[in-house]
Amino acid sequence: LPFSKLDDLVVVLVRPRNPLNIGAAARAMSNFGVSHLRLVNPYAIAFREARSAVGAQELLKSAEEFGTVAEAVADCKLVVGTTAVRNRALQHPLRSLNQAGKAIHKQLQAGRIALLFGSEKIGLTNDDFSYCHWLLHIPTQENHISMNLAQAVAVCLYELARSATPKVNATTGRKSKDSSIERATAGDNEQIIRTLLEALRKSGYVKPGTDAVMEKKARRLILRFNLEEIDAKVFLGMMRQIGWKLRQEN
Amino acid sequence: LPFSKLDDLVVVLVRPRNPLNIGAAARAMSNFGVSHLRLVNPYAIAFREARSAVGAQELLKSAEEFGTVAEAVADCKLVVGTTAVRNRALQHPLRSLNQAGKAIHKQLQAGRIALLFGSEKIGLTNDDFSYCHWLLHIPTQENHISMNLAQAVAVCLYELARSATPKVNATTGRKSKDSSIERATAGDNEQIIRTLLEALRKSGYVKPGTDAVMEKKARRLILRFNLEEIDAKVFLGMMRQIGWKLRQEN
Repeated sequence: LPFSKLDDLVVVLVRPRNPLNIGAAARAMSNFGVSHLRLVNPYAIAFREARSAVGAQELLKSAEEFGTVAEAVADCKLVVGTTAVRNRALQHPLRSLNQAGKAIHKQLQAGRIALLFGSEKIGLTNDDFSYCHWLLHIPTQENHISMNLAQAVAVCLYELARSATPKVNATTGRKSKDSSIERATAGDNEQIIRTLLEALRKSGYVKPGTDAVMEKKARRLILRFNLEEIDAKVFLGMMRQIGWKLRQEN
Repeated sequence: LPFSKLDDLVVVLVRPRNPLNIGAAARAMSNFGVSHLRLVNPYAIAFREARSAVGAQELLKSAEEFGTVAEAVADCKLVVGTTAVRNRALQHPLRSLNQAGKAIHKQLQAGRIALLFGSEKIGLTNDDFSYCHWLLHIPTQENHISMNLAQAVAVCLYELARSATPKVNATTGRKSKDSSIERATAGDNEQIIRTLLEALRKSGYVKPGTDAVMEKKARRLILRFNLEEIDAKVFLGMMRQIGWKLRQEN
């Protein structure tokens, strides 16, 4: 099947409030061959009974719940957030869905990818964004930018399935440059971020009361490095040693 | 706007049973710049109050009701039906959504086009099909072919809007992602490398006699980060503060 590659795609619904949307998102996943659903703090546990999940009961049963975005994406090598916003000064690179599809396919050979969708009312927060390598938006009308959650999931997965199918991959057996690179997982990056933050606190870089801001700043920075797995290990080792030294001195 | 062409597209919901789906279909139409909604024998007149029609109230108010498919498509020059079925002996030409998008665009200059969606349970009937010039299907998994009505509308309109846009990007001459990114200079990187090395020495990461090896290791690492100019500045600031602290302590 042309869609088998989407096995490594993980759909993450962050704080979804409407069980119907959860069910409909699950149904769209079944339609397009995506099987990993994760929920971060879903509003109602009732999601498993979502009536609209026609033909997606099994997928819903195997859905996993997490308390935080960090935990939900820990084993993913690429984390992509979805947003309706496009003119606000976003701190992250922003791609349209069309471009995003290509970028995501390049990385799918390399490991698990998380695609984050925010809650119905407010979408993803800046805090959620800080876990993302980059963001995607679905090109919609300027005066009606905000899509229904489950429809946004369907459109994104359609585009990913669609752009997976053309001969692009079949034409040559040639591996794209990116496919041979092992990226660090979100969990690896998070360890680096924690260690860096600790060093920054000990060194006085983090001013009192700026902890949350600095955490986002550090996370954004490290994710933008787009670390390879091997580099992440080296860098973490360095940061740990520096952190250890700073602790000794205090 | 790139979507203005879709003004001549008419979405026809045939015997929809769920007001939520009608509302959600209307919302997707708003998202993608399609304004003509027609309903053939909707199950409940309550559709105008459909709660899920966020931002699509006006569109719903102007929706037209018809008793038959024939009346609903009377002023259209092309009538396209949607179906999940693909292996049954259909009497009509069948195109995948991707192909259909191109064909529909070719005709949009020539006049109004109707896109028919059937009821949630059974879709379009053979009788409905008889009004169609040809049929389209959304490529879905063999074992989960049937999509939610409103999601199918969203996906179809996304594809039509998407395939209407391509030239726009080419003509704006917008810069590709990479060309608009300012990378850090070698000089910027070198400052980071120096600062990092100093911190590594102070912290004991650099063992005696391994200075040259470690310097190469650090440089390779930092250059592989392929830092953007803006990130390099932030990172250098962090490393300098950490380095300053380590000097204080010694």
